[in-house]
Amino acid sequence: MKYQFDLDPLFGKLKKLGVKRVGLVLPEGLKMYADYISSELKKQGYEVIISGNFNYGACDAPDLDFEQICDCLVNFGHAPLPVESKIPIVFIEVDFVFLYMDILKENLDLIKNEGQKVGLISTVNYVKELPKVKGYLEGEGFEVFIGKGGDRVAYPGQILGCDFSSATTISNQVDFFIFVGEGRFHPLGVAISTEKKVFAFDCDGIYSLNEYKDKILKERFGAIFRAKDSKKFGIIVSSKKGQKRLALAKILKRKIEDSGFFADIIFMDEVAPDRLYGFDYDSFVICACPRIGIDDAKRYKKPLLTPKELEIVLDRKEEYVMDEIDQEDF
Amino acid sequence: MKYQFDLDPLFGKLKKLGVKRVGLVLPEGLKMYADYISSELKKQGYEVIISGNFNYGACDAPDLDFEQICDCLVNFGHAPLPVESKIPIVFIEVDFVFLYMDILKENLDLIKNEGQKVGLISTVNYVKELPKVKGYLEGEGFEVFIGKGGDRVAYPGQILGCDFSSATTISNQVDFFIFVGEGRFHPLGVAISTEKKVFAFDCDGIYSLNEYKDKILKERFGAIFRAKDSKKFGIIVSSKKGQKRLALAKILKRKIEDSGFFADIIFMDEVAPDRLYGFDYDSFVICACPRIGIDDAKRYKKPLLTPKELEIVLDRKEEYVMDEIDQEDF
Repeated sequence: MKYQFDLDPLFGKLKKLGVKRVGLVLPEGLKMYADYISSELKKQGYEVIISGNFNYGACDAPDLDFEQICDCLVNFGHAPLPVESKIPIVFIEVDFVFLYMDILKENLDLIKNEGQKVGLISTVNYVKELPKVKGYLEGEGFEVFIGKGGDRVAYPGQILGCDFSSATTISNQVDFFIFVGEGRFHPLGVAISTEKKVFAFDCDGIYSLNEYKDKILKERFGAIFRAKDSKKFGIIVSSKKGQKRLALAKILKRKIEDSGFFADIIFMDEVAPDRLYGFDYDSFVICACPRIGIDDAKRYKKPLLTPKELEIVLDRKEEYVMDEIDQEDF
Repeated sequence: MKYQFDLDPLFGKLKKLGVKRVGLVLPEGLKMYADYISSELKKQGYEVIISGNFNYGACDAPDLDFEQICDCLVNFGHAPLPVESKIPIVFIEVDFVFLYMDILKENLDLIKNEGQKVGLISTVNYVKELPKVKGYLEGEGFEVFIGKGGDRVAYPGQILGCDFSSATTISNQVDFFIFVGEGRFHPLGVAISTEKKVFAFDCDGIYSLNEYKDKILKERFGAIFRAKDSKKFGIIVSSKKGQKRLALAKILKRKIEDSGFFADIIFMDEVAPDRLYGFDYDSFVICACPRIGIDDAKRYKKPLLTPKELEIVLDRKEEYVMDEIDQEDF
């Protein structure tokens, strides 16, 4: 994994903003560079305050009262997202090299079996690798589609853990998807949202998300089943600006009450198992990052539901729909 | 342990404020009553949003952007502290009964050996039990002192984990202290701050804090020793309104730099071990709640220092001074 640390673009942007005090926000994988980036900024005459909070995306960049102590925020590793902020946020994307091109080439026969029309999807750190992968696949006779997502995604082909529109928009045109990136959650979301086959890669080679999707859906229907007897629901809303789905939470609260049950809205910044231990609700509905209810559900004692899963519980719906964040949810 | 749940005083205060939307903030031990308190408030016509964050004291009651979604905050279990807040905070104290009066009576001979002048100290949940204990001890021939602390404490005799002034102010007048309450950290702070003997109680009986103090001081000097080779210091400031010692952090940063080392200020809401893992600093200085560096230090990989301990590291001071929060630190 190579990080590109050319700080000149950052210095240029800061100069343009005319700021003096910089708040530095880094995701976990880049925190080890905090003191390096800070020392380089200080050499340029800036005051620096580093955020020690977790940073999962552009959705939670401007948390805390940074506007009282800094003139701007600098968030490494994420692309801009339309979130409110009292001070400017400079997003510095960090590009990774896609390390699995060779594995892709070795498995051409396997993917040719799936069809000739392929959709490419990626996360922001790998999205600039898409033209290279596209060029290679076209040379091999594939027709390659890269979808333009909604307002919440910055690049064609980019997907977020809460927005799969770059995939769903081209789903009807393609036979299958290839995920250019790392990690399972993003391609899983595409597999659930599109019902198409999705190929991804890790150090062991190429794999399809279909089996993993079956496993996760079994877990989800397990949680839905466990939640069916719930009388008291806690609806969790995160204070993170890009996850704060309070309008949605209020709709769900009314829906729960209309179904004859009790619901409270619970507001917190970081959603974590130990923050819920003390409460006496039967189930929790997560109106924060959609990953929490799915990726981390096993770490919680009580059933966690996504807003879509709550509808299955209350309305006895059958169809599973992936939770995504919509501007109307806020 | 008995909780007193007469909600009428709360209803009275809310009526006076003329509010409609109530943010409910509960410490861990009371979270289990969240849905009960919420349902009672709803019966009175209030909208309720519950904080899911941890709540350790009046120092962190008004975190999050509650002012955008509520008209006031209600914080159970703590006495008022002078902290800034954009919306009114109603503090509802929760009184515990001191369960160890019998043990105190059984051990009169033991404490009589320590002298005739006794200082009483307590935490807010037990402070209303002080007159009862005072009356009993006076009846037994003791001269009883209850100190009036600084502006940060609401009641005579009350101590906070960051303010032992109710004890230090009477330390010269007393032979020893009796702690009316539960838990070890508060009486430990008094033992360190006053160097007087402090008696406390738990289910096993009466005990003196002196041995525990020796153990903790050994641990602290261990951390100080480990930190002596540090070149890069991370200075942690909490965004919690009553812990946000940014002015102190800036002074310490300059002090570290003047000593020829590197320092960054790191800003976060909740200080927790996993938030520091990613960083590449050699030691951390905790300008947040003083308990973190002392009670929780073993959960962290790198040495944690209180601001006072940093002075021992940098100035080769010998004397151990307990970290307390001062209004000038903000």
